[in-house]
Amino acid sequence: MQPDEALARLRALGFGEGDARTLFAHFDDAERRGKAGHGYTRIEWLATLPDLDPSASPVLELERPGFERWDGRGALGYLTLAAICDHLVARRPEPARVVVARRCFPTGMLGHWVRRLADVGLVALLTATSPPRLPHPDGGPPLVGTNPLAIGIPSAQGAPIVADVSMGKTTYGDVIAGQASAEDLVPFGGEQAHKAFALALGLQLLVESVAGEDYGAFLVAVDPEHGPTDFRGRAGDVRLPGDR
Amino acid sequence: MQPDEALARLRALGFGEGDARTLFAHFDDAERRGKAGHGYTRIEWLATLPDLDPSASPVLELERPGFERWDGRGALGYLTLAAICDHLVARRPEPARVVVARRCFPTGMLGHWVRRLADVGLVALLTATSPPRLPHPDGGPPLVGTNPLAIGIPSAQGAPIVADVSMGKTTYGDVIAGQASAEDLVPFGGEQAHKAFALALGLQLLVESVAGEDYGAFLVAVDPEHGPTDFRGRAGDVRLPGDR
Repeated sequence: MQPDEALARLRALGFGEGDARTLFAHFDDAERRGKAGHGYTRIEWLATLPDLDPSASPVLELERPGFERWDGRGALGYLTLAAICDHLVARRPEPARVVVARRCFPTGMLGHWVRRLADVGLVALLTATSPPRLPHPDGGPPLVGTNPLAIGIPSAQGAPIVADVSMGKTTYGDVIAGQASAEDLVPFGGEQAHKAFALALGLQLLVESVAGEDYGAFLVAVDPEHGPTDFRGRAGDVRLPGDR
Repeated sequence: MQPDEALARLRALGFGEGDARTLFAHFDDAERRGKAGHGYTRIEWLATLPDLDPSASPVLELERPGFERWDGRGALGYLTLAAICDHLVARRPEPARVVVARRCFPTGMLGHWVRRLADVGLVALLTATSPPRLPHPDGGPPLVGTNPLAIGIPSAQGAPIVADVSMGKTTYGDVIAGQASAEDLVPFGGEQAHKAFALALGLQLLVESVAGEDYGAFLVAVDPEHGPTDFRGRAGDVRLPGDR
C-alpha cells in the first residue's frame, strides 16, 4: 500500500480529515521504522472491527492537580493518545502529570507518542494494555497482554532516545502482518522469561487499577529540570533505542 | 549472620535506633526472599563505604501539586526511600503523585518499598539508577546501570503482587555475594538483550532528567480507583511475581 492509498482508505472508513491524518501519521511512522505490524496493515484490520465508530472522540473526564483521566468513548486508542499528547503540549506539566486513559485501544506503536512529547522537550513513560496473549512462563493459557513500555527522552544531539519494548518475544502486530509465528507470543527472555512476564503483569495491573478492566493506558509526563540528555555523547558511536 | 548480629552491626556503624531498624527490615526481607545480594552481605559492604554518614537524613526539598522532589543529603538511599514511603502513607496521593529522589543510593531491593505501599492499598511504580554495569548488547564498556523496575499491586487474595525486575542477566548484588559471575552483568534476554538494554537506558535517562547525574530514584504512587486486583483468582494456581 502506498501512502496516498493509506490516507484515502482512512477517509473512506469515515474518519474526518484531522483524525485520518493523525492515524495516517502513526501508521506511516511505523512503516518507515520497519514496524510493519503497526503500519498500513492495521488499516485493513480496522475495517474488520465490528464496532468501529469513526465519529467517536475521547474526552478528558477528570482533572486533579498533576492528574488527568480520559475516556476513549469508543474512539480508537490512537486518537485518544493523540488527544492526550495535544493537551500535554498545550498545557505542559508543572513539572509532572500522570495521565490515565480508559477504554483506550488499540494504542499502536507507543514510541510514536512519547517521541512526539520528546520533540517538545517532555520526558514521558507510557504503557498500555491489550488482549491476553502471553502465557505464564510455566505454560498455560494467555494471562497478560504484550503490554509495551515506552520511554521517550529529548536528546541534546540528534533524535530523541526512545525505548519501546513489548514484553512478548514477538508482537501480535507482527503475527497479523505474517512476519512472526503465533508460537512466539510468549514473554521474551528465554531462560529469564519470568522477568518479561513480571513486567507485563505489573504494567497490566497498574493500568487496570486506574482504568478498570477495559484496555487502557497509563502515561507519566515530566517537564524535566535536567536535559536534554548528553547520553549520545557519552555512549560513543552505538545504535541507541529508537534510532532507525 | 544471624538477625540479632545484623541489627547489632548496624547500630555499631553509628545509625540511630530508627534508621538501624529500617535498614534491618530491608536486609532481613531480602534474606527471607532468597535475595542474598540485597541482604546481610550489604551490611559488611556498608562498612567499606568511605563516605558513609550514619547521621545524614533526607529532606523533602520541593513540593508541587502531585509532585515531590527529595534530596538524600548523604543518607543511604534505603533511608530516603523509607522516608518517601512514610510520607506517602501519611499523606496519600490524590489520586497520583510523582516522587523524585536525587542523591539516592543505594536503594536495594525495590520490591521492598512498593510492597510496603501496596500493603496500605497504594499502587506504585519505582525505578532507581546505579553505577554503569551493563554494556550495549553489541559490546563495549558498561553504559547503564542494572536499573530495576518494580511495580506493586494490592491483591484481593493473598499478598500483594510485586514485579521487581533488574535489567541485568544477574544483579551486582549477586556478584558481590559470590552467587553470580561478573560476566553475567549484561542485559538479560539473550538474543533479545536489546530489549532489556533499551529499558535500562530509558529508565536511567528518565531518572537523570529529574534527579540530575547523581544516582536517583523515580516513583509514581496512585491511590487506585479500582482494586485490589482479583488477578490471583483469574490466574489460577500459578506462582506470581513477588510470591515466595
